[in-house]
Amino acid sequence: MPKIVRFHETGGPEVLKIEDLPPVQPGEGEVRLNVEALGLNRAEVMFRQGRYLDAPECPSRLGYEAAGIVDAVGPGASDIHIGDRVSTIPAFSMGKHGVYGESAIVPSYAVAGYPDDLSPAEGAAIWMQYLTTFGALIDIGQLKEGDAVVITAASSSVGLAAIQITKAAGALAIATTRGAEKKQFLLDAGADHVIVTNDEDLAEAVMAITVGKGANLIFDAVGGPLLEMLADAAAPGALIVEYGALSPAPTIFPLFSSLKKGLTVRGYTLFEIVKDAERLARGKQYIYEGLESGALKPLIDRTFTLNAIVDAHRYMESNQQRGKIVVTV
Amino acid sequence: MPKIVRFHETGGPEVLKIEDLPPVQPGEGEVRLNVEALGLNRAEVMFRQGRYLDAPECPSRLGYEAAGIVDAVGPGASDIHIGDRVSTIPAFSMGKHGVYGESAIVPSYAVAGYPDDLSPAEGAAIWMQYLTTFGALIDIGQLKEGDAVVITAASSSVGLAAIQITKAAGALAIATTRGAEKKQFLLDAGADHVIVTNDEDLAEAVMAITVGKGANLIFDAVGGPLLEMLADAAAPGALIVEYGALSPAPTIFPLFSSLKKGLTVRGYTLFEIVKDAERLARGKQYIYEGLESGALKPLIDRTFTLNAIVDAHRYMESNQQRGKIVVTV
Repeated sequence: MPKIVRFHETGGPEVLKIEDLPPVQPGEGEVRLNVEALGLNRAEVMFRQGRYLDAPECPSRLGYEAAGIVDAVGPGASDIHIGDRVSTIPAFSMGKHGVYGESAIVPSYAVAGYPDDLSPAEGAAIWMQYLTTFGALIDIGQLKEGDAVVITAASSSVGLAAIQITKAAGALAIATTRGAEKKQFLLDAGADHVIVTNDEDLAEAVMAITVGKGANLIFDAVGGPLLEMLADAAAPGALIVEYGALSPAPTIFPLFSSLKKGLTVRGYTLFEIVKDAERLARGKQYIYEGLESGALKPLIDRTFTLNAIVDAHRYMESNQQRGKIVVTV
Repeated sequence: MPKIVRFHETGGPEVLKIEDLPPVQPGEGEVRLNVEALGLNRAEVMFRQGRYLDAPECPSRLGYEAAGIVDAVGPGASDIHIGDRVSTIPAFSMGKHGVYGESAIVPSYAVAGYPDDLSPAEGAAIWMQYLTTFGALIDIGQLKEGDAVVITAASSSVGLAAIQITKAAGALAIATTRGAEKKQFLLDAGADHVIVTNDEDLAEAVMAITVGKGANLIFDAVGGPLLEMLADAAAPGALIVEYGALSPAPTIFPLFSSLKKGLTVRGYTLFEIVKDAERLARGKQYIYEGLESGALKPLIDRTFTLNAIVDAHRYMESNQQRGKIVVTV
């Protein structure tokens, strides 16, 4: 029987349990993967904690990203065949289709091939980070050459994807990180500037970098009190895309600076992209081209085994990671 | 010597003083108006209180909207002639060009003719309310037939303009007001629905009206805790335009609902429009056509004389008004 990760109550990493569950056949429009690698996401930590956009029904599966080989195909799942090497696009409910385990059943529209020269670990580290960033910076943000982009929580997989996508567009990537220990890593990852927010005034630093103009595109995973600082760092007419809620503190809307500068604050998740066939198709094409050209390259931080899934979640919560945390299965 | 309203310190309505000041000649690119009527705006109350976007330098003039007859033309102020019947477009600093008084000097680009069949009181009640609303709903909001629009502080001149512009587009105008006493007035003014926020749950009421869809365009003068309720009343993908700060309380950004629904919160003032020649030209054309067709009609609430300017400001702060407060000069 395949080992499947579930949790029976919300809570810390220790609620994750590895269980032997009977094999399941894929239903209408579904395919089954023999999982080789899992990509971990902050969304799964929040879902496990009961702090995500939708609440789990326990016992609940979890997990958005897996790479594997198709080993069963349900009725109506056309264009996918047994033996296909694919990874999953987070276009489903985690509680229902969570991929943490040796076997996963997902809708057929939520799998896609990945380039042959990527490992399964890398294949499991593509769609969440690049589609999230594509949607925010390219599709909504209309990123262009010469833009000044501020990227918060830049050491996360999405943050690093944003640095790569910003540089690929010929724009200026200004990364932020709380402590100095990740500064060199972010410079090596391609950031033009790194602001250490524990040591520097964010708005002052951005204004210095942009010679008083401010950033015209801001990609923020944090929210909370940081939003007001980001508004101070923004150029007139700037777009601030909020895509996460890492801060547990209330997010104050910067009303006066938004009035003065005509700022737009846009809440966003990649579900906007993956639920829209046309935008998803454009995102996939953009990502395939970027992987092909080398402009996009997933950075793997550390790999764990499935048995160490609790440790892998603990590590994610420690905020030490520099890129994607992967679990090999 | 012309009587001019100034204040020597920020504060309540009583700081406004009527002073006899020597006549001034218009400078380069300026014109002088013999003022016939003033339109009062909340912006002037906030400027007098020191709570506006820019701080006054005392002694300070104030006032954005006047209708009058051009009685002097400075060098370089082409296309404007002595004797022209015009009103002012708020495209200047109030502290420098404030129009409260018998005579006002403004930049020539900030005056425009108004239809012959409008009185000076009505002429002084056009540009702020209709350009503000044009910018938010038409230029930024791309208002279209079938949209559901929530308009807060709907009894203000801008609120009433928004009802008219919403109806002119064939969209649904949902007005909000705090107390029940203005409900019938707002229905008479063209609102399809009026929500009395002291008595009703805003989000529930909007969801009932829109059969669960929510409002896709929200035009809010208030901010503060209301923003979270507006986000609850919003449809997926909705745009919330914040154009004022009537609430003194901090404005909480509705992070989770904005993530879930992909909401956009946009800070906006009409200065975006009046500082952009192309958008201003489109706004003026839209407004002239609307006045001509009768779709737009400024509603005058009450008129005061210039000597009663303090009372006029007190009345605005009492929030009893239903439409524009005008001062005849």
